[in-house]
Amino acid sequence: MVNSDYQQVLNEITAEVQPLLSQGKVADYIPALAEVKANQFSMAIHTTDGETFCAGDCSERFTIQSVSKVMTLTLALQRYGDELWQRVGKEPSGTAFNSLTQLEFEKGLPRNPFINAGAIVTCDALYNRLSAPMHSMLETFRLLSGNPAIVIDKKVANSEYDFRHRNAAMAHLMKSFDNFDNEVDDVLWAYFNFCAIELNCVELAKAYNFLANKGVDNTTGKVVLTNRQSKQLNSLLFTSGLYDAAGDFGYRVGMPGKSGVSGTILAVLPNKFTVAVWSPGLNSFGNSVAGIAALELLSEKLDISIF
Amino acid sequence: MVNSDYQQVLNEITAEVQPLLSQGKVADYIPALAEVKANQFSMAIHTTDGETFCAGDCSERFTIQSVSKVMTLTLALQRYGDELWQRVGKEPSGTAFNSLTQLEFEKGLPRNPFINAGAIVTCDALYNRLSAPMHSMLETFRLLSGNPAIVIDKKVANSEYDFRHRNAAMAHLMKSFDNFDNEVDDVLWAYFNFCAIELNCVELAKAYNFLANKGVDNTTGKVVLTNRQSKQLNSLLFTSGLYDAAGDFGYRVGMPGKSGVSGTILAVLPNKFTVAVWSPGLNSFGNSVAGIAALELLSEKLDISIF
Amino acid sequence: MVNSDYQQVLNEITAEVQPLLSQGKVADYIPALAEVKANQFSMAIHTTDGETFCAGDCSERFTIQSVSKVMTLTLALQRYGDELWQRVGKEPSGTAFNSLTQLEFEKGLPRNPFINAGAIVTCDALYNRLSAPMHSMLETFRLLSGNPAIVIDKKVANSEYDFRHRNAAMAHLMKSFDNFDNEVDDVLWAYFNFCAIELNCVELAKAYNFLANKGVDNTTGKVVLTNRQSKQLNSLLFTSGLYDAAGDFGYRVGMPGKSGVSGTILAVLPNKFTVAVWSPGLNSFGNSVAGIAALELLSEKLDISIF
Amino acid sequence: MVNSDYQQVLNEITAEVQPLLSQGKVADYIPALAEVKANQFSMAIHTTDGETFCAGDCSERFTIQSVSKVMTLTLALQRYGDELWQRVGKEPSGTAFNSLTQLEFEKGLPRNPFINAGAIVTCDALYNRLSAPMHSMLETFRLLSGNPAIVIDKKVANSEYDFRHRNAAMAHLMKSFDNFDNEVDDVLWAYFNFCAIELNCVELAKAYNFLANKGVDNTTGKVVLTNRQSKQLNSLLFTSGLYDAAGDFGYRVGMPGKSGVSGTILAVLPNKFTVAVWSPGLNSFGNSVAGIAALELLSEKLDISIF
Repeated sequence: MVNSDYQQVLNEITAEVQPLLSQGKVADYIPALAEVKANQFSMAIHTTDGETFCAGDCSERFTIQSVSKVMTLTLALQRYGDELWQRVGKEPSGTAFNSLTQLEFEKGLPRNPFINAGAIVTCDALYNRLSAPMHSMLETFRLLSGNPAIVIDKKVANSEYDFRHRNAAMAHLMKSFDNFDNEVDDVLWAYFNFCAIELNCVELAKAYNFLANKGVDNTTGKVVLTNRQSKQLNSLLFTSGLYDAAGDFGYRVGMPGKSGVSGTILAVLPNKFTVAVWSPGLNSFGNSVAGIAALELLSEKLDISIF
Repeated sequence: MVNSDYQQVLNEITAEVQPLLSQGKVADYIPALAEVKANQFSMAIHTTDGETFCAGDCSERFTIQSVSKVMTLTLALQRYGDELWQRVGKEPSGTAFNSLTQLEFEKGLPRNPFINAGAIVTCDALYNRLSAPMHSMLETFRLLSGNPAIVIDKKVANSEYDFRHRNAAMAHLMKSFDNFDNEVDDVLWAYFNFCAIELNCVELAKAYNFLANKGVDNTTGKVVLTNRQSKQLNSLLFTSGLYDAAGDFGYRVGMPGKSGVSGTILAVLPNKFTVAVWSPGLNSFGNSVAGIAALELLSEKLDISIF
Repeated sequence: MVNSDYQQVLNEITAEVQPLLSQGKVADYIPALAEVKANQFSMAIHTTDGETFCAGDCSERFTIQSVSKVMTLTLALQRYGDELWQRVGKEPSGTAFNSLTQLEFEKGLPRNPFINAGAIVTCDALYNRLSAPMHSMLETFRLLSGNPAIVIDKKVANSEYDFRHRNAAMAHLMKSFDNFDNEVDDVLWAYFNFCAIELNCVELAKAYNFLANKGVDNTTGKVVLTNRQSKQLNSLLFTSGLYDAAGDFGYRVGMPGKSGVSGTILAVLPNKFTVAVWSPGLNSFGNSVAGIAALELLSEKLDISIF
Repeated sequence: MVNSDYQQVLNEITAEVQPLLSQGKVADYIPALAEVKANQFSMAIHTTDGETFCAGDCSERFTIQSVSKVMTLTLALQRYGDELWQRVGKEPSGTAFNSLTQLEFEKGLPRNPFINAGAIVTCDALYNRLSAPMHSMLETFRLLSGNPAIVIDKKVANSEYDFRHRNAAMAHLMKSFDNFDNEVDDVLWAYFNFCAIELNCVELAKAYNFLANKGVDNTTGKVVLTNRQSKQLNSLLFTSGLYDAAGDFGYRVGMPGKSGVSGTILAVLPNKFTVAVWSPGLNSFGNSVAGIAALELLSEKLDISIF
């Protein structure tokens, strides 16, 4: 297919998902997220050729939430390589994303870097190597998205911090198992700031284009990860990127992806494109209702799948 | 039997447990406890008539650790009555005493007030009602033990606090379930201070004599608990006082009891006496090897049992 | 108090619990139990002096269900003594009575003989030593209750067997851990027959009178258990007799007890009496609503408690 | 790369894995498997062009064990389509492959069709629709492998059946949750027979070639699954095919795969080939040590990955 068809497909999908926009439930575990209007949608494709396509509320920004975990892992892999896996596993969690039970059973070693405990311990690792982690993360997104004006939504970050207690419990539990180096509250503050970075779908697809492009950012030419690391990261996304719905997402969509509770999902078609979608209404697994549907439609319409 | 026989029995038991003093393992999860010499033993009986008997290292003081949980519960029951049970359960835990798993499964409601999570939430409740909780607790022990010179071992309290992370995880988890009112670190500091109160066996048996005496302290005549509350507290000790060895302790000893990782155990023979034993070597359940054996011998020699 | 007051107290309690008879929910996991009329109640005391008192539907028989587990354990202790504890534990389960999870975690060793898995493995042990286990059990109840006409409700036994799959899962799991000797279905059939023995409250209190009488049946003079074993069995009942409500039952009633899903509860006041109550409506823990209330009233009215 | 290079690569790999052949541990949970000689290896590729390459002990047959689960699922999907997912999930298990705990927690719905419980319930579904399930399965393998002489190793099937109790526990637990239709022992017998089908690596790669070929068997032209179903099945293999090592396998190998305790692994490179490897020595996850290494080498040498 030619790239120019992508716009047509995105337009079709945007029209088709309209009935779904009222179906999900906006995340309400913190007040700052609960205020977001449900009835929104946007979807953007950024190809390995450097072309961008978007439909819907393309200029609307949202906090990227757990999609930031992919960049946290990326920065940690740059600094630690495979040594990182001494502190976090590579296996699907097989349970809800906020489980203390599993973390206790596994003696403080989180199952993978995309569940909260795993992302927090990865932050802790990053914290050891970066003098200004929030600044570094923000600059990374500014560089890779091509927008130097990107900011952190401090209201969201503060709200997350106020309701940090489950995450604090995980961090203290890891500390009790000697798998946490820094002060719990410091690392959590960085973690919530990473989650509160604001992007729109175009910027999000662009920022992660290296995952579809053998590890190389196609605008700057910067080698973000090695080709092998990039493939490995996509594999981890496939097995663990959607919490307890990874199997179903793979079954329906056939691409590695990562979701966030703001209603965004990033997916990767290796050697072709990254795609970002956003719609705040969530299903019971914490994934965007319209976002999942849109990616399934994309997979069908373009007849794509990694398999 | 006449009271005067108690001394003879304590002497016999002290002789008989000598071979066991080298068998257990002193608690070493914090440095301050690991320094304690294993080869020590003492055992004291305080009768409802107000008589005291002791054998072994009777003047040796030790931190009472989890036996303090019984007084924490007592002070909380004085202030809350049955309302307290909205925040903590009455059932045996059925698992190890430090389980996050169970606490998550039970949605932040600890199974009973004698596991760590339950004692910590009871402290949090007390913290709401006392302007100076550590002072109040210390004064209670000074009054009931009859020794105004009793102190807190601050080195132990500080050491516990430094290694607080599993307990902090529990407190934050309860906070995430809205079952924790105060700052986690403040309550933990009070909790560790309670655990670090230093008594000898005579003082310990004396301080808790109200449990054998229908709720009334037999020296001061103070009504510590109602008769009914005292019976209820004994019942809770019977079902939950020895972590995951309550069934076996009841089977062997036939009295309600509470153990602490310093190697002390308090037991109650209603309407007769309280008995305190101490020997630092622990078995795999965290209970004093010689202490359990001494109480089993006491039960056999005096042919006592609540059944 | 004099024994003659017991009748008066039973009459009062029977009157007071009438409003509760419609509140519980009759067990409906098998059709044969679901047919029982809820609005029934009886309560009987059998003293160590051999006197019997009863109020309510005293001649109504019911299947004793899990109260049979106490006799299964009794017969096994007669034959194995403490060797039995290699196959079943003595600790409260801390979870619902039908848990495979715990059994797997504990590698096929049930927590105690009063949860289903524990009773089934105890049956398996008995099965090794009895040529006709169902006949032996029936004869035991006939002898101890003084009624040679006691029978098994085969309709109930068959219905239980038809819906045996959770229990079969436990037995197979124990077999996979080498803690099960006989054919699963054979042992389950015996187990369900034991549960389906029919007694009325008077017979039930009488059959277990040895538990209040130092192990000796007070009619026949037969030594059913040693004094020590009898105390130990009472201790096990106290910590584990009411599934996941043992702590609360002890707190309220202050006596060891065992409940069954037919709505019966047996309790023991050592050296005084056994008491049996029956009312089919159950609470969410599977214990009789009116039965629990009646025992709590008895405890208050007679000011009894083992503590 | 040209197909003719495959032989060279297989030869290299066979040489390189020799030092690993003594490292794993042959499955010994049943006597019939424990007898297999560890020091064996073979690896075969079957391309979508219909070409076959093999190195090592190519004519050695082994029971395919859990790799049969892929065909069980295939036959069930042919008959039920997406309706099958009402009886089994699509998510990674996140725990060991024999867990009763998870099955109880999920109320009798196995997490996916590749853990034992999931395969057994899929067999139960097949059993409803096939008059002679063992014959049908055998004929399917005979047809797709091109060898009408393929047989079931009855000694292995019988040995598995004798040690069936954990699997029987799962089946009974599912039956207790109304997710099992037939007699437990009948379905288990079929299940163990499926596991005991004997193939060599060439036959195994050939039998599953439809997974690399859009659902079509490239020898007979038979449409085994639709293109979409074939992609979906590969996705399920990627997320759940290697028990609790799926994430690591995907990370290292980058292909969907399925392992069996006989030491075989099947993997799929969509649109290119299927590859089967066999070496009996297992790692602690129950996967072939040399088999995993061989597939990782293949992935590196051919620079293949689905990402």
